[in-house]
Amino acid sequence: MRDSHGAERARPATLKDVASLAGVSIATVSKALNGREHVRAETRARVQAAAEKLSFQPNVLAKGLLAGRTGTVGLLASDLDGRFSIPVMMGAEDAFGAGSTSVFLCDARGDSIREQHHLRALLSRRIDGLIVVGDTTNPRETLGRDMPVPVVYAYAPSTDPEDISVVSDNVGAGRIAADHMLDCGRSRIAYISGDVSYHAARDRVEGATAALAARGLNLVGGEALYGAWTEGWGRGAVRTLLSRNPDLDGILCGSDQIARGALDALREAGRDVPGDIAVMGHDNWEQIAAQSRPPLSTIDMRLEEVGRLAAELLFTAIDGDYRVGTHSVATRLVTRGSTALAG
Amino acid sequence: MRDSHGAERARPATLKDVASLAGVSIATVSKALNGREHVRAETRARVQAAAEKLSFQPNVLAKGLLAGRTGTVGLLASDLDGRFSIPVMMGAEDAFGAGSTSVFLCDARGDSIREQHHLRALLSRRIDGLIVVGDTTNPRETLGRDMPVPVVYAYAPSTDPEDISVVSDNVGAGRIAADHMLDCGRSRIAYISGDVSYHAARDRVEGATAALAARGLNLVGGEALYGAWTEGWGRGAVRTLLSRNPDLDGILCGSDQIARGALDALREAGRDVPGDIAVMGHDNWEQIAAQSRPPLSTIDMRLEEVGRLAAELLFTAIDGDYRVGTHSVATRLVTRGSTALAG
Repeated sequence: MRDSHGAERARPATLKDVASLAGVSIATVSKALNGREHVRAETRARVQAAAEKLSFQPNVLAKGLLAGRTGTVGLLASDLDGRFSIPVMMGAEDAFGAGSTSVFLCDARGDSIREQHHLRALLSRRIDGLIVVGDTTNPRETLGRDMPVPVVYAYAPSTDPEDISVVSDNVGAGRIAADHMLDCGRSRIAYISGDVSYHAARDRVEGATAALAARGLNLVGGEALYGAWTEGWGRGAVRTLLSRNPDLDGILCGSDQIARGALDALREAGRDVPGDIAVMGHDNWEQIAAQSRPPLSTIDMRLEEVGRLAAELLFTAIDGDYRVGTHSVATRLVTRGSTALAG
Repeated sequence: MRDSHGAERARPATLKDVASLAGVSIATVSKALNGREHVRAETRARVQAAAEKLSFQPNVLAKGLLAGRTGTVGLLASDLDGRFSIPVMMGAEDAFGAGSTSVFLCDARGDSIREQHHLRALLSRRIDGLIVVGDTTNPRETLGRDMPVPVVYAYAPSTDPEDISVVSDNVGAGRIAADHMLDCGRSRIAYISGDVSYHAARDRVEGATAALAARGLNLVGGEALYGAWTEGWGRGAVRTLLSRNPDLDGILCGSDQIARGALDALREAGRDVPGDIAVMGHDNWEQIAAQSRPPLSTIDMRLEEVGRLAAELLFTAIDGDYRVGTHSVATRLVTRGSTALAG
């Protein structure tokens, strides 16, 4: 924008101005102007005409926003014990280097009145953007399209596909876990999952089932056992499995807590892990996995990476580039003593 | 303050103004004017003279501050996994009712550069006050006496006795745990503690030792076994105890994780809990304690209550009343299956 234009209008046109004039959403303006993804030619032309009419200049806008950044991002959590939100917060801060960005975390505890209150408090504190961390991986209600700052949903995706969401790849996690079992020479593999009402539970089973199918195998017993995210369920399920399928040689578990219970029940049944039966968890919850006997092989969801990507997408959005949709972060295999390459 | 005085000065005198004029700290002004604790008569007189000269009116000031409150408190944490800071945060919010106060949590991860950055970010966001949560119960460095808002240190006390600190009563926790063992008819009681460099570890042992001494008893083996805050240490220590003192009938543990390891090792050694040996933990970490076999009796540090008291002391300080010193929150006995009244 040239200085000589300064007198023509009080402030430079924003993405929102362009969106209003073109009669489309901000996300659509962003996509149209950045040449990304599915925008109909007609819509793109309308957005471009509006942008031209308003002398909208995305790069200049981006610079202006960069200069006006406060270096502070809000994080709206509701996971009560911080097991998911704290790593996401750390990853978000790391995306910008220590000492350059602060993340303010508020915990709504799944209470919508509290959430609205925190939201108002954060928005009145000049935050650059907002990261919303769900308490489960199930999709959560969107905050809507009228938010005054960009919003990225992390861990749990938003219900609105026009929002920006970052999730952990649970289907991929199930596949990685099952492939590791197969690589360890196991072929009679059972799955002890958690609460069936969690998308994550079903997604992990889906990935594992697909990996086995790719080698012509099925889960022992034909399907996963669903129950609770607890050690007690892990112990009980192992007893059931041993009575029904005494020849199994691998057990995939939906969480480290379930796997911990499974390990204890196997030891008490006199079954050797991993010599006789290999066991995998999910979460890489250090205090559980490293203290198990034997220490537990598991899947790390890389929540810090979820936070890092959420922060990057948030700042990209602040710069006017809304990369809407659900972005998936690949999980990582962590091998410890509970699995081993069969000789 | 009467309206007719309004023209005399641009703003009402603050505690800080009085402190400057009297040549003392803000905390001393507060104590002197509230008639609390150890303030020398001479100092009190000097403060009162300064307050009079400046027409300082604490009650009016308090009302003014109440009116000017933003309803937002900063919480500076450094415990990495949020196990201590999140419950403290919740308690602080509850002190004022849902929907009336927001707590913004920042995590410094024990890094002083990050801490300074978060501090600047919070202070520039119109917070009413600050709660600092340590990562251990060891005293932490004070932020100093020049903070522009009141500060309360929670979980870990400040190194400066003129600061306001709220801690969990670890000596009392040890006493409560030992008394419960005694009430259950146990008399040959050992103690498996955590890392000896933690004040909390030594304080809990001190309380237990005192409770036993009050009934003319000593710890089995003469002193506590110090090690690590892990299940592995709990298991190893139990094996040592059983070989040295096979007739013990109670084991106090410095944490739930240690107790969990102890329970597993006892079961594997064929010792019945609680019939043969009773076991107590410390933390009431639900996911560990409730899933143990048998479920674990333990001590709850009431971290929400620590947060609630910290918030109350913080708002009292905002109103001009600095209750300096270390305030202690009593812990609570939680009985589950690992202890039982001996028949």
